[in-house]
Amino acid sequence: MSAALRQQVLAANRTFYDAFEALDLERMEACWEASGQVACVHPGGPWLRGWDEVRESWETIFANTSYIEFQISEPRVEVVDPVAWVTCVERIVTAVGAERAVSEIVATNVFVVDATGWHMILHHGSQVIRAAPRGWSS
Amino acid sequence: MSAALRQQVLAANRTFYDAFEALDLERMEACWEASGQVACVHPGGPWLRGWDEVRESWETIFANTSYIEFQISEPRVEVVDPVAWVTCVERIVTAVGAERAVSEIVATNVFVVDATGWHMILHHGSQVIRAAPRGWSS
Repeated sequence: MSAALRQQVLAANRTFYDAFEALDLERMEACWEASGQVACVHPGGPWLRGWDEVRESWETIFANTSYIEFQISEPRVEVVDPVAWVTCVERIVTAVGAERAVSEIVATNVFVVDATGWHMILHHGSQVIRAAPRGWSS
Repeated sequence: MSAALRQQVLAANRTFYDAFEALDLERMEACWEASGQVACVHPGGPWLRGWDEVRESWETIFANTSYIEFQISEPRVEVVDPVAWVTCVERIVTAVGAERAVSEIVATNVFVVDATGWHMILHHGSQVIRAAPRGWSS
């Protein structure tokens, strides 16, 4: 993959987190494909399918969030044209009054490219609560 | 997307869960691309990157699991050739002695096709612990 393509995908990924930090629904919508194909899991949540459901979730999250900041680490980009995905760790800083809280989310962000650029088609975020895999019944 | 293509992807998805139920590392390896590009999140876990890390996680999980059964519901297939992904709900039945436990996991399974078929390149599973999205700081 060319460095330019990798930069394009990383920029699309950062634009998504910038829209999230801005709590701006219009900017968030511009990041997405906004079709029936989109799917989203917020940490701990169920599948949301299609833009209407996904849009509504952002509306709810933005309405109930006063401050949020994303430090993105360990980003990995894979491009299999016309699809690309970023796997990364979101270090999230939130504020409730004077208190600050930090949490760690692992995210899969899938993008599809068209003539206008890369658009998110899937977002899957989940909490990291343990370091290593173990059995399901042990 | 043709019905045939959709069936191919769903079959690859089921083959993955069959290998998991069989706790069979060789069959699991056959499902994956087994390259440096693969990535995996087990529920509650961190990113595992590259086949060596992912393989090791299956080895640990299989060694610590005595019985596991997957009922897959709400599967949705998206194909953007040569990539496809299944989003689904895993209803997991495990057994510890005479006790049975059921849990619900949402999964993103990304596949890439080559001349030999569809191979998994990303698996991201996470627990469902709430029904609807809310704010991050409320």
